Amino acid sequence: MENTILELQFAIDTFYFLMMGALVMWMAAGFSMLEAGMVRSKNTAEILTKNIGLFAIACTTYMAYGYDIMYGGGVMLDGIEVIAKEATYAKPADFFFQVVFVATAMSIVSGAVAERMKLFTFFAFAVVFTGVIYPMEGAWTWNSESVFGMYTLGELGFADFAGSGIVHMAGAAAALAGVIVLGARQGKYNKDGSSNAIPGANMPLATLGTFILWLGWFGFNGGSVLAMASKDSANSVAMVFLNTNAAAAGGVIAALILVRLLWGKADLTMALNGALAGLVAITAGPDTPTALEATLIGAVGGVLVVFSISMLDRVFKIDDPVGAISVHGVVGLWGLLAVPLTNSGVSFTGQLAGAGTIFVWVFGTSMVLWLILKAVMGIRISAEEEYAGSDISECGLEAYPEFTK
Amino acid sequence: MENTILELQFAIDTFYFLMMGALVMWMAAGFSMLEAGMVRSKNTAEILTKNIGLFAIACTTYMAYGYDIMYGGGVMLDGIEVIAKEATYAKPADFFFQVVFVATAMSIVSGAVAERMKLFTFFAFAVVFTGVIYPMEGAWTWNSESVFGMYTLGELGFADFAGSGIVHMAGAAAALAGVIVLGARQGKYNKDGSSNAIPGANMPLATLGTFILWLGWFGFNGGSVLAMASKDSANSVAMVFLNTNAAAAGGVIAALILVRLLWGKADLTMALNGALAGLVAITAGPDTPTALEATLIGAVGGVLVVFSISMLDRVFKIDDPVGAISVHGVVGLWGLLAVPLTNSGVSFTGQLAGAGTIFVWVFGTSMVLWLILKAVMGIRISAEEEYAGSDISECGLEAYPEFTK
Amino acid sequence: MENTILELQFAIDTFYFLMMGALVMWMAAGFSMLEAGMVRSKNTAEILTKNIGLFAIACTTYMAYGYDIMYGGGVMLDGIEVIAKEATYAKPADFFFQVVFVATAMSIVSGAVAERMKLFTFFAFAVVFTGVIYPMEGAWTWNSESVFGMYTLGELGFADFAGSGIVHMAGAAAALAGVIVLGARQGKYNKDGSSNAIPGANMPLATLGTFILWLGWFGFNGGSVLAMASKDSANSVAMVFLNTNAAAAGGVIAALILVRLLWGKADLTMALNGALAGLVAITAGPDTPTALEATLIGAVGGVLVVFSISMLDRVFKIDDPVGAISVHGVVGLWGLLAVPLTNSGVSFTGQLAGAGTIFVWVFGTSMVLWLILKAVMGIRISAEEEYAGSDISECGLEAYPEFTK
Repeated sequence: MENTILELQFAIDTFYFLMMGALVMWMAAGFSMLEAGMVRSKNTAEILTKNIGLFAIACTTYMAYGYDIMYGGGVMLDGIEVIAKEATYAKPADFFFQVVFVATAMSIVSGAVAERMKLFTFFAFAVVFTGVIYPMEGAWTWNSESVFGMYTLGELGFADFAGSGIVHMAGAAAALAGVIVLGARQGKYNKDGSSNAIPGANMPLATLGTFILWLGWFGFNGGSVLAMASKDSANSVAMVFLNTNAAAAGGVIAALILVRLLWGKADLTMALNGALAGLVAITAGPDTPTALEATLIGAVGGVLVVFSISMLDRVFKIDDPVGAISVHGVVGLWGLLAVPLTNSGVSFTGQLAGAGTIFVWVFGTSMVLWLILKAVMGIRISAEEEYAGSDISECGLEAYPEFTK
Repeated sequence: MENTILELQFAIDTFYFLMMGALVMWMAAGFSMLEAGMVRSKNTAEILTKNIGLFAIACTTYMAYGYDIMYGGGVMLDGIEVIAKEATYAKPADFFFQVVFVATAMSIVSGAVAERMKLFTFFAFAVVFTGVIYPMEGAWTWNSESVFGMYTLGELGFADFAGSGIVHMAGAAAALAGVIVLGARQGKYNKDGSSNAIPGANMPLATLGTFILWLGWFGFNGGSVLAMASKDSANSVAMVFLNTNAAAAGGVIAALILVRLLWGKADLTMALNGALAGLVAITAGPDTPTALEATLIGAVGGVLVVFSISMLDRVFKIDDPVGAISVHGVVGLWGLLAVPLTNSGVSFTGQLAGAGTIFVWVFGTSMVLWLILKAVMGIRISAEEEYAGSDISECGLEAYPEFTK
Repeated sequence: MENTILELQFAIDTFYFLMMGALVMWMAAGFSMLEAGMVRSKNTAEILTKNIGLFAIACTTYMAYGYDIMYGGGVMLDGIEVIAKEATYAKPADFFFQVVFVATAMSIVSGAVAERMKLFTFFAFAVVFTGVIYPMEGAWTWNSESVFGMYTLGELGFADFAGSGIVHMAGAAAALAGVIVLGARQGKYNKDGSSNAIPGANMPLATLGTFILWLGWFGFNGGSVLAMASKDSANSVAMVFLNTNAAAAGGVIAALILVRLLWGKADLTMALNGALAGLVAITAGPDTPTALEATLIGAVGGVLVVFSISMLDRVFKIDDPVGAISVHGVVGLWGLLAVPLTNSGVSFTGQLAGAGTIFVWVFGTSMVLWLILKAVMGIRISAEEEYAGSDISECGLEAYPEFTK
């Protein structure tokens, strides 16, 4: 009888992991649609190919060696009969939940380097990022044992519940390195240094992507409680769902009010970025705030993202077509720094130390890797190819053959 | 041990609420896509902004005061440690499930007033509707205690399982008031009183939205059982899923056959409306019919919606670009009246009394509110703005900059 | 107390069936979007109508008689109070899970016959296919009792876990018969026998459809374990999720590498077909492979689908606009044949016998049915209608009225 209760608990936790993982997997579709909507039509098929390709690569490299690096012990060769008997939930369910996180981190990169990068260079980067760069930094916090035999980031007082830093800021750091190596799109900046807006081709698609991400984020944050089958864990998961939703709502409202005040119009792309910023901001600590605090944390994210996108574009000349570096990087840092406001077990210095470590590692290794790939494979399509669109040069087809001239 | 079983039951019910809530949240994407597909391209970005904005507003006002009005006791300031210890499921999970209902009610309004309303006037309406108008009428049935110290609608013999009336007809009543105050779109009606069809710009998007709503409706109705962790409640939830699906299918088939007979063609928009009508119709009582009865209830909804859309447009000159008033209002009333057919505990007079109360309250308060907003903020964009499209005037961008001339 | 544990187990298994069923229902949206993206804009509304219509028909015929044929005992007239008391999960949940499978099989047909078939002829076919043809062959394996009083396919050593053969190859066999009777689209083949590529109008939609199918497939395969509430079944479901994902990833990677080698470009449509091929391939046996084996099974599917699509088009002049016969038929057969590689309880001869039986039955009955329908209703729209697009002739509206000239 005791045994049967344990079996039910095992079943509930496994079921929960699988459903949360399915929601996170769905975020791959969200990034695809968001990015496909935010680029020009001539680069749409390429970014779709990039997104489905990176998801497949992430799943395969993480299975082959990434999971082993991050947590120790792989799943690649496990048959159903050798699955660990002592766990409180099925090991493949844990893997499934973890693997979709890797893909999320990688998806962040794809938008920022859109419209000018060689597709297979990107895929080569993805193999190393998802298999090594991400698992290493993930292990420093989420693996309870030290990788270097020294200390984990957690021992420094760093906490990152579901990955504002480990997933989002890490993705943004890799993206930033890529954008720096790659340079801006043709026609983005004028000789006098002013910047041209390059509107995305399909706003319903971008909006759909944002809603998909919003939905998927319930799995992302809710699953990071890592258990469901007790009153305490069920309460935590529920609180995380509520706060995740509240933060996204706060981000939308803050961004909409801000752009209305600044520009007199309700810029849809900023409303979408506001939602995503709210979600990124709450991800480092969705369990401890009250709903009101979560709304405010999200709202600050929504304000930050508007200013950050303008600043990166106009002041720093960082050409990020989808605003990924602002949404996931700048707001990811805000998310980390917001944790001590509601969680007394976490310190600002710990958060800064952790954020710094993650950024230095990911940005540094990514920069080296992008430079190697640039030398070996080339990183940028030719000016003619860029003018004609990467769909033709990289994929040999058009995304909307009947809709554009 | 007893305790552990209670914990598992708590976990299952909480998990169930969260998954059903996630499905209902997904309906926000469904309404966005449906409405974006049914309007012209020049008004698409605006309706997307409206939809993501209203969802954010609904989540925030309902957290701040709506939930407190409707059920008593808020969640805004609850930390994880103060969550009620005695519940049979986590309180934030209940809130999460309830809050996505508010957003659904509000989403119904946005389609009907499309293509000519000022965006921020709509948002101002949303603040009051989601925070006060809806919670008040919701409380009269779904809160077991009387709000006015008199009686609840349930005591009158009124039953509305998941909200054909409380959510759908209520949304339609607010929409109807808005459309009356607002007037028809330019070019919709000719001087001789005849009506011009204004086709939606993107049918795949409208179809996607309908499928999303169909999927989300499993959460909407299935979650309204309010429990899962016993044999009886599990059977009820399963029956509700089955009947919800059957009614939607019946609605599609009836609408397709009817329009084929009437017009000789299988009008896609009517197939979509048929699906939605089936879903709305079954929502008032998805637990008591057999699958065959559910199919028929949905089929009647599918027939009604075709006639209602034609009538409202041609006879009453109600310009509702997406047919929301017919789908959610007329069919919502049918759904209420169908309950006594399969549920002997419910009376026609009770249903009529409840429907009347809801309609009078929501239509009346909404009319007053729309008129106040018209006086204070203005309700309609200028004729020039309407001609150029609300995307430019309200959002400052275009939804499809490369696809239209 | 014992009783309470049984109730919780009942609740968990029912909840699991409903969630898996909801994911499979979502595949209907996936097929709709995939097919709508792969056809030309002038045939888009028609294929959307076809997809929502066939789903509604499948749900209704399977309720009325299909389920009874396949498993015995219907649900059509069951009220909530007569639901079987002895089951280990709610009977309506089982029905809901099964009914969405029927719709999946039927969805496979719709893409292959796109752009030239009469819509109501297709619907008439759907009534018989979903109500009789599919339930018959499904019963031979998945119903534990023999239908003919002879033997089940399982007794021949045939195994098909979630339906590579029973669902996917069966759908492809019906599609193949339809395409043969129907003939190729105008302009597809030149007088010299060469083939013209006819690009799909909307690649983001096709990609979205693929992601939806990928997500829905977790329900398709994961739900086919048929239980969750024990450690063994939870482990199985988790393994199935992991392997389903791994196979899809393998399919994408293999297809992308292959087309890069063959054509020098990363053809997006082949990446999408690779994902679907990986999913179809693993469906016959997602529980026994290791993750590495699943990846390889999917990768072989991804290679096969590229060659099969080229062969069917260029060599056999089979005009299948979305590649459904290759993805679901050829790769479905591969999936069946791959089972013995990792499951010692299954034999190649059993798999061949089962595959042959299914193909002969479905292809034969479908051919007869298509020919009868051709004689009675006509099967093909006129040449003028085909030139103008089936949207106008069949549905009386356009999918994208503002985007194309």
